[in-house]
Amino acid sequence: MTSVHQKKYRSARNKFLAEGDKLVLEAMRSKADIREIFALESWKGCQEAERLGIPLTLINEKELDQICELKNPKEAVAEIAMPKNVNSGRILKGKWNIYMDRLRDPGNLGTVLRIADWFGMDQVICSPDSVEGYNQKVIQASMGAIFRVPIISMEAEELIAQCKANEIPMFATAMSDKDISGVKAGNEGLLLMGNEAQGLSEILLRAADERISIKGKGSAESLNVAVAAGILMHWIYSS
Amino acid sequence: MTSVHQKKYRSARNKFLAEGDKLVLEAMRSKADIREIFALESWKGCQEAERLGIPLTLINEKELDQICELKNPKEAVAEIAMPKNVNSGRILKGKWNIYMDRLRDPGNLGTVLRIADWFGMDQVICSPDSVEGYNQKVIQASMGAIFRVPIISMEAEELIAQCKANEIPMFATAMSDKDISGVKAGNEGLLLMGNEAQGLSEILLRAADERISIKGKGSAESLNVAVAAGILMHWIYSS
Repeated sequence: MTSVHQKKYRSARNKFLAEGDKLVLEAMRSKADIREIFALESWKGCQEAERLGIPLTLINEKELDQICELKNPKEAVAEIAMPKNVNSGRILKGKWNIYMDRLRDPGNLGTVLRIADWFGMDQVICSPDSVEGYNQKVIQASMGAIFRVPIISMEAEELIAQCKANEIPMFATAMSDKDISGVKAGNEGLLLMGNEAQGLSEILLRAADERISIKGKGSAESLNVAVAAGILMHWIYSS
Repeated sequence: MTSVHQKKYRSARNKFLAEGDKLVLEAMRSKADIREIFALESWKGCQEAERLGIPLTLINEKELDQICELKNPKEAVAEIAMPKNVNSGRILKGKWNIYMDRLRDPGNLGTVLRIADWFGMDQVICSPDSVEGYNQKVIQASMGAIFRVPIISMEAEELIAQCKANEIPMFATAMSDKDISGVKAGNEGLLLMGNEAQGLSEILLRAADERISIKGKGSAESLNVAVAAGILMHWIYSS
């Protein structure tokens, strides 16, 4: 059991930990591929875990603390198999896709997953140099979306090639360009979101079919990338 | 100088600290009421501070560390007078107002300020039991919006009374109600946003003229409150 909290051990076995009572319940509800649950005897999910046939190990608070990265984890932790790349790393034709270019902040990635889950997007694609998707901060900020929205990793060059081959229009979010209120999202596309400080890479800006932005009138320099992703996914959803 | 980092000392004098090179530059750019800057000799803003006639004290890295709450603060920190309540704690007639009911997370409040700044809203109103507005985490997440968007504190009862007296329509964000795509925002109003876990208080839900929501189709339980505020302020702005 001591080895489950070692990141190396887990990623070599394609597993990650969901820490805390709420997330473990959410993982069961979402039918995530839970390999084992470690919980206090008092945890309210024990019966449900047994009913689902999930291996359950009762531990004490000190052991829970040792397994988890979180300070004061609550009552339970689950070891979960990382989802197989269900879409074989492909852009989805006839749907909307979102690509995060060099995203740095785990809270932002978790929040983007939560938004994608809300608006029913099938996957979130990240550049390989983005923050690691199964980082505990991502998992916590996703509020369980991590169990439902697969994270795909793809190089920008591959992404562009797939979009061109499948005639999927690429929309780059960039400053001082066409406001989304004047653009119709259509039935399929790829939304490109850039790094928190530097925005989108040159190669993606150049490859995009259209540059779009969210117009404001104040003096803020920019919107938070997850907030911008929320406004844009809502725009796609309601177009 | 040792006393400037004591919260008690500062709030008794209605001052707060903006920590880090970027924020201090932003405070100068925003014409915030800076009382004093403490900076390393190498800081690139020294000349500008002198040009603006702001008292500048050169310190070393150890002293900077002692003043700041941030770990590894960068190069400068400014002591700033809290803005006077420019609108005398009033709902603004003929404009859109936003009210945060029992907001708990400082990152969320900072992000809401940043969004309000982006869309040019004149103030953000918070219930008195919301997270403290001049908390360092709020200041950092606001990315400088804290210097431009005043935070007003108001009890729900007073808020409701002002809206009724001024015939300002109140929009409550709540689950499973009217989707915003079917509602026009109009020229004035109050947008009510609730606590991260519990949503809006009963008293506000009951007082609202209209309940609105952001429709989704996935299985997420909710959107992050700052993301929802972003989508709703964009809706107001583009209505």
